[in-house]
Amino acid sequence: MDVYGFSSSGNCHKVRLLLEQLGRRFDRDYRWIETDSSRGQTRTPQYLAKFPNGRVPVIELDDGRTLAESNAILCWLAEGSPFLPGDAWDRAQALGWMFFEQYSHEPYVAVARFIRGWTPMDSPRRGAELARCLERGHAALALMERHLSVHPWFTGAGYGVADIALFAYTDVAADGGFDLAAYPAVHAWLARVRATPSFVSMPEPAAEAAALLASSN
Amino acid sequence: MDVYGFSSSGNCHKVRLLLEQLGRRFDRDYRWIETDSSRGQTRTPQYLAKFPNGRVPVIELDDGRTLAESNAILCWLAEGSPFLPGDAWDRAQALGWMFFEQYSHEPYVAVARFIRGWTPMDSPRRGAELARCLERGHAALALMERHLSVHPWFTGAGYGVADIALFAYTDVAADGGFDLAAYPAVHAWLARVRATPSFVSMPEPAAEAAALLASSN
Repeated sequence: MDVYGFSSSGNCHKVRLLLEQLGRRFDRDYRWIETDSSRGQTRTPQYLAKFPNGRVPVIELDDGRTLAESNAILCWLAEGSPFLPGDAWDRAQALGWMFFEQYSHEPYVAVARFIRGWTPMDSPRRGAELARCLERGHAALALMERHLSVHPWFTGAGYGVADIALFAYTDVAADGGFDLAAYPAVHAWLARVRATPSFVSMPEPAAEAAALLASSN
Repeated sequence: MDVYGFSSSGNCHKVRLLLEQLGRRFDRDYRWIETDSSRGQTRTPQYLAKFPNGRVPVIELDDGRTLAESNAILCWLAEGSPFLPGDAWDRAQALGWMFFEQYSHEPYVAVARFIRGWTPMDSPRRGAELARCLERGHAALALMERHLSVHPWFTGAGYGVADIALFAYTDVAADGGFDLAAYPAVHAWLARVRATPSFVSMPEPAAEAAALLASSN
């Protein structure tokens, strides 16, 4: 199986994290095709011919079939494993959190990080969008805090796909300017996720992005 | 079961459409609690105490359990029916399109409609956001057109949850200023969805919204 992904993208790292936790190893059980979406590598004619949505992550099976959308990929990979609840109600709750992640969390928490790390210091997006990202992102974090004050995980009784989906960008929320000190339950949950077996961290951003992130504080 | 929904919202209508097509009838098998999110009815202290995400649709089972996020509700209701593919790959593809709907379609196609029908004629959002909604919305429609030029449905081999999710706002895309003439395969698919058994249309918007929509053209 091939995974087309950008290592610094939380959406892409979700796929790698689950694969590793399923016991599937990099360069043995799957190939990672590094595809830098921040430099237009998902918008080339060759890429679009294969993956018309022009995004990462995408997986391609050995028979050529492809699947897009990070959270759909998680559900497919987790099928039949403890990472996807067997109970229909728990599975629906996990999906609910995954749709929440893509609609109410990623567009603010991840986009704030992208603007600060992958657009120039004089980008008009810094002035136009960051305040709204922070406001909406904090609303998402507050809802997570409320859930995690009562429940240990987002995926029903155990750790799984919804935790992976929400962990990816929450773990690097500080890059977007979010202070997690006000969210102790989120903070404790992040530590629990990091302690799960075969956990792998997202790689550090490349030097240029790291410098922009540092300058944004 | 109670469905908290705003009748003019495509996200809410998805739930009603699937329930009717599953043979579950309004006021017999489920109650519809009209909740006008455009007038703040999802942000009252009473509503937030019950549904902390402050959105519609939400379902509440007779035992008090609740489930949020329109597309998660669709998956749960469709469980074990032909509307959710039994094959894991087809189910993952359906989920992929549902995540696409919430990330790349609804925030533009539905938001354009909302701005034109539910914000005043002098709303700053009309100037600030509509052009971007149109650009991104057309990109989503173009991707749907490409898929529908080869496949009759989004949910694997038959009509189902992904079609319902994408139909809701595509069917009223003209309200947001989208001309569907350039998308003949989308146009034909909309007609196929409307011809499915027990199909129900979304109700017309209330007079005030209808007048704003008419004035926006």
